[in-house]
Amino acid sequence: MTPTIGVFDSGFGGLTVLRALIERMPHAQYAFLGDTARLPYGSKSRRTIARYAAESAQFLVREQGAEFLVIACNTASALALDAIQDAVPVPVLGVIEPGAQAARDASLTGDVLVIATSATVQSHAYKAACRSRSLCALEKACPLLVPLVEEGWINHHVTAEVIRIYLAELTADADARALDPDVLVLGCTHYPLLRPLLQAAVPANIRVIDSAQAAAEAATHIVNGRLSLPGEELPVVPPSAQLRCFATDSVEKFERLGSRFLGHPVGKVQLVDLGG
Amino acid sequence: MTPTIGVFDSGFGGLTVLRALIERMPHAQYAFLGDTARLPYGSKSRRTIARYAAESAQFLVREQGAEFLVIACNTASALALDAIQDAVPVPVLGVIEPGAQAARDASLTGDVLVIATSATVQSHAYKAACRSRSLCALEKACPLLVPLVEEGWINHHVTAEVIRIYLAELTADADARALDPDVLVLGCTHYPLLRPLLQAAVPANIRVIDSAQAAAEAATHIVNGRLSLPGEELPVVPPSAQLRCFATDSVEKFERLGSRFLGHPVGKVQLVDLGG
Repeated sequence: MTPTIGVFDSGFGGLTVLRALIERMPHAQYAFLGDTARLPYGSKSRRTIARYAAESAQFLVREQGAEFLVIACNTASALALDAIQDAVPVPVLGVIEPGAQAARDASLTGDVLVIATSATVQSHAYKAACRSRSLCALEKACPLLVPLVEEGWINHHVTAEVIRIYLAELTADADARALDPDVLVLGCTHYPLLRPLLQAAVPANIRVIDSAQAAAEAATHIVNGRLSLPGEELPVVPPSAQLRCFATDSVEKFERLGSRFLGHPVGKVQLVDLGG
Repeated sequence: MTPTIGVFDSGFGGLTVLRALIERMPHAQYAFLGDTARLPYGSKSRRTIARYAAESAQFLVREQGAEFLVIACNTASALALDAIQDAVPVPVLGVIEPGAQAARDASLTGDVLVIATSATVQSHAYKAACRSRSLCALEKACPLLVPLVEEGWINHHVTAEVIRIYLAELTADADARALDPDVLVLGCTHYPLLRPLLQAAVPANIRVIDSAQAAAEAATHIVNGRLSLPGEELPVVPPSAQLRCFATDSVEKFERLGSRFLGHPVGKVQLVDLGG
């Protein structure tokens, strides 16, 4: 049996995580749900995010038969991982812990910078995950970066200037605290699309870590250990054939913008009503 | 009896409309609801927006006793005014028609520019309201302006540059269509906060029209005609005493940022659950 992996995001930024999963596990089946009717989670409260995320997780497990869930949304991972684990009877992996572990593996100084949405930063989930690995994390909310990506200003001078301002504030704060960061964690699934601009904006000694990649790596280890995944001798079918995409609203926008995140067309997106 | 006026917005940008209403009708009572758990409406579908807006309107009429509703949200006015009118038994005023009428009153050339959210622009509600007044409207979505206002970058060089880019695209489009616009309509309740930057960015012959002001003016005429409003001989009590504010999420953010829109503190905001 080919395992079905459920991937959940508040929008379609989590397609960057799905992309990384497909690269590592091309034989698995995937069901992706974007809760686009209720996005963005990044500006909402813990109580609301937990309710939305639990309903979304139940859809993927009960309706789509997911045997393993990847929460490809930093905000939901930060604020609602417990609520999701309580809501479904399958293993659930968020993006925060893998991101923090990748930072631990990459950092020599033990000081790391994290950029994310307001809700993720306010939760201090990255700070806690880093602290448990003896890392000191300095977090900064960058609320303009998601709208800039969604406007398509991926390689735009305004985006470069916004990044310069945010990172200048963050590194000034690090200097004031006598930190010596050598890692920058991208704590939002939209940010990998800005990686070239971010990479250009940080000093050469700072490594940029993508939580999407880190989570896909961790998910591959877990799935290979727990679920029966077909061996490499099986023919590789095109990823699109194994992928079902769902959204709670704006399926046309999902289909149109999703390919930017997934790296190839997302195909037909089905509308689902979670009652919200 | 002092009339109760219900004011509804997807977030708290509609507080700019409430502010204009209080200036004109300081004796009325106000109940303001921001559907902050489900914002932004600007990126959602008509079906979803109509459902959310109808539920919100029913709360203001049934639970708060509103006798007149002002839909202080361009997106809801554009996409859901019919659904709201069907959902409640009181008069309902949106911001689109008053905005278009103010443009009609101000324009000599008959050509007007409109900036708004993506959903408002895609609905072409301003275009239709202008056409029925023999105006030719050219609309442009400016999705970065709301996040910039919410980041507090009201008077910031990045915001000025984003406005320059959006308006350059819009005026180039107007030139290509041989239009001669002399009015710019602010078709989003966040935009009045950017009025100084917008005013500085348009040619001197273009008048900037604020739909919030226009809607408050129209509401005052309707309320004075239909509902009994106390005369000027009554003492003017502070607006805060007559104002109840509700939100479906993030009341702290509402209380913190709301004063920027209202012009004075919003006071205590009550959390309500509309079941979404």
